[in-house]
Amino acid sequence: MAEKIQTLKGFRDFYPEDCAARNYLFERWRAVAHRYGFAEYEGPVLESTELYKRKSGDEILGQLFHFTDRGEREVAMRPELTPTLARMAAAKQRDYKKPLRWFAIGQFFRYEAPQKGRTREFYQFNVDLLGEPSKAADAELVAFAIDLMRDLGFTADDFTLRLSDRDAWLAFLEGEGLDEADPAAFLSIIDKMERERPEVTEDKLKGLGTSREAVDAFIASAAGSAHFAPVLDDLAARGLADFVTVDLGVVRGLAYYTGTVFEVFDKGRGMRAVAGGGRYDKLVSLISEGAADLPACGFAMGDVVITDLIKETPSARAKLDEHLAAAGALDAYVVIADESKRAEALGIVQRLRAAGLRTDYPLVPLKVGKQFGHAESLRARKAIVVGAEFPTVAVKTLADRSEQQLLVEDLPTQL
Amino acid sequence: MAEKIQTLKGFRDFYPEDCAARNYLFERWRAVAHRYGFAEYEGPVLESTELYKRKSGDEILGQLFHFTDRGEREVAMRPELTPTLARMAAAKQRDYKKPLRWFAIGQFFRYEAPQKGRTREFYQFNVDLLGEPSKAADAELVAFAIDLMRDLGFTADDFTLRLSDRDAWLAFLEGEGLDEADPAAFLSIIDKMERERPEVTEDKLKGLGTSREAVDAFIASAAGSAHFAPVLDDLAARGLADFVTVDLGVVRGLAYYTGTVFEVFDKGRGMRAVAGGGRYDKLVSLISEGAADLPACGFAMGDVVITDLIKETPSARAKLDEHLAAAGALDAYVVIADESKRAEALGIVQRLRAAGLRTDYPLVPLKVGKQFGHAESLRARKAIVVGAEFPTVAVKTLADRSEQQLLVEDLPTQL
Repeated sequence: MAEKIQTLKGFRDFYPEDCAARNYLFERWRAVAHRYGFAEYEGPVLESTELYKRKSGDEILGQLFHFTDRGEREVAMRPELTPTLARMAAAKQRDYKKPLRWFAIGQFFRYEAPQKGRTREFYQFNVDLLGEPSKAADAELVAFAIDLMRDLGFTADDFTLRLSDRDAWLAFLEGEGLDEADPAAFLSIIDKMERERPEVTEDKLKGLGTSREAVDAFIASAAGSAHFAPVLDDLAARGLADFVTVDLGVVRGLAYYTGTVFEVFDKGRGMRAVAGGGRYDKLVSLISEGAADLPACGFAMGDVVITDLIKETPSARAKLDEHLAAAGALDAYVVIADESKRAEALGIVQRLRAAGLRTDYPLVPLKVGKQFGHAESLRARKAIVVGAEFPTVAVKTLADRSEQQLLVEDLPTQL
Repeated sequence: MAEKIQTLKGFRDFYPEDCAARNYLFERWRAVAHRYGFAEYEGPVLESTELYKRKSGDEILGQLFHFTDRGEREVAMRPELTPTLARMAAAKQRDYKKPLRWFAIGQFFRYEAPQKGRTREFYQFNVDLLGEPSKAADAELVAFAIDLMRDLGFTADDFTLRLSDRDAWLAFLEGEGLDEADPAAFLSIIDKMERERPEVTEDKLKGLGTSREAVDAFIASAAGSAHFAPVLDDLAARGLADFVTVDLGVVRGLAYYTGTVFEVFDKGRGMRAVAGGGRYDKLVSLISEGAADLPACGFAMGDVVITDLIKETPSARAKLDEHLAAAGALDAYVVIADESKRAEALGIVQRLRAAGLRTDYPLVPLKVGKQFGHAESLRARKAIVVGAEFPTVAVKTLADRSEQQLLVEDLPTQL
């Protein structure tokens, strides 16, 4: 006997109840994007491996699902969307008025060790604003991220948005007289600082010519600095100031960020980043040599961590549950009480569906009691009983067992 | 200068206007599935290559995007969904009441020569009914496919559903005394007959011990045969008989079909199959050895051919265009006529969005005329002009240039 074929490690099957939860998230992502005036786009799941090599950021390269295709091309399943966006925007940037407000919902692939909150395949919501270099664009995206969390049912008790800026750190390096230090190497130390043993960080910082003490003092001082005023004032005007914490400890791992960076941070026991992003003004010209620089900023939210957080947070969980209850239910189940009326029952099924009602019926003869059992397990709102009295049918409301008699021509308007 | 990175051959970028057309199709697929009482599921894009080997059907194996992953697993990007469905259904069939009505919308990958109507990546709508062996289930799926076409705006002038049955051909072989012929080899000849030169078909049929004449006579005779009565009577009861043509010339290419097979066929100049499916009663136990046989039937529709057909068919095109016009438009554009009121304008933007309105505004100071230009190019319904008169704002309806003055607290309810 052949071995049972399993789902690949780190990949997920979405049975109907899981798929409904996934679709809830997609629906909320889309709804908030539409409110913010963003248009949806999508790129290919498979791209030239070169696209990811060029962007640098070695961390992602080591996690690629990549191979040589039948046409000898080096190809990779996409680990993130930003390089594709940069390619697409560079190719057609003259066709669109700036700024571009674009979002995408798609699947991504990274060969990592699966663990809680991390799979080898995940969905990600990508939101980008291209063609506008000002802090007003950064603030618009920060507001978007906050409103997305609120839309999902989270409050200021559940999350904060940690706002930072790589330019502040470049100013720090200058202030320390370290103009010649590699900013990428320095930022990488700051990025890892929260997860690293203090001695290791101290050693690394000393190696660059600064110290943990200087870094900590800078982080402590910056919250009140004028540096963040444009973004903070903008958010205050929207009534969103309470959701933001200036926190220079956030620099984001990816190499391509240039100015503002931020992450949405779970304040609960998990202490996880559920979304993150920032400004990446040089990436479009880096990906598409010859294209003009296109200032850009964006953020992304994956489906795995946020879904866990929704399930753990009562106010968010309640919204999900409400969606799930509605998503799976039927409007009508047509009970065939007399098999000689099957053709008439099929006609009714057709009428109900044509009116947009979610309708099911027994494909084969079944006892009436069993049909009602089906109707209940499918969470039907109404049962339409077709029997010898046709063209009169009985309409039962399953919640309260109330019943009325209707002529078939009064269906479906009186349901 | 580095070479420009291109989209891979046969793969598509979905810029916002293409993505909106794709989403229209997804929305209609989902809407009809819900009316028919089907629940959405999804499987992984990457599966063990063995899953496709086991199902046989060599045509697909030669078109796989497959490779060895970092963990030395033989993996393939999915070329179709049915093997995944069989794996998932076998793993959890005891958890669900039969019949299962399941649908999925996802992306698939086949390394084929790209040409009109064929790409290397495509979306596909998969609809399956598992756990019910009767012709009533086949009829339900045939009705689904017809109603889907009608929902998209097609009429009986635009398409027909060609209904066939592999069992009829098995009876033909028996009648010809060819009980020992390989049915798969015979069905493959019938499948290719429409596209093959007549002499080639004749030679192949002679090799099996029958003839083109016998085959043609059987096809001509079968339309009136009792064989199709259960499905045709069911469809007649729903008022859908006009959309069906019995046509034994259809047998479908895939090896796993067992009884009813059908395809939705464009009656226009294109003469293309836009959807197809049938019964596959043995596949679940074939994929998951040890699992009980689970009778099943299903059909699939890809996005590429149907999108071409929608665009070529005025009644279908009109429905798409109506969707596109609504999908891309803004509800409100907040014009900042006086920069000193930017904070107040941001407060209004926040209020409108909180009320669910699609809202945009200028991120940076712009002349008022230019802001109205933006509002028009973004197809905004209303412009809310915030100026020195705040808290009074002017609300302009862009279609007719009418204007009213409102107090800010009356927004958004009076928009």
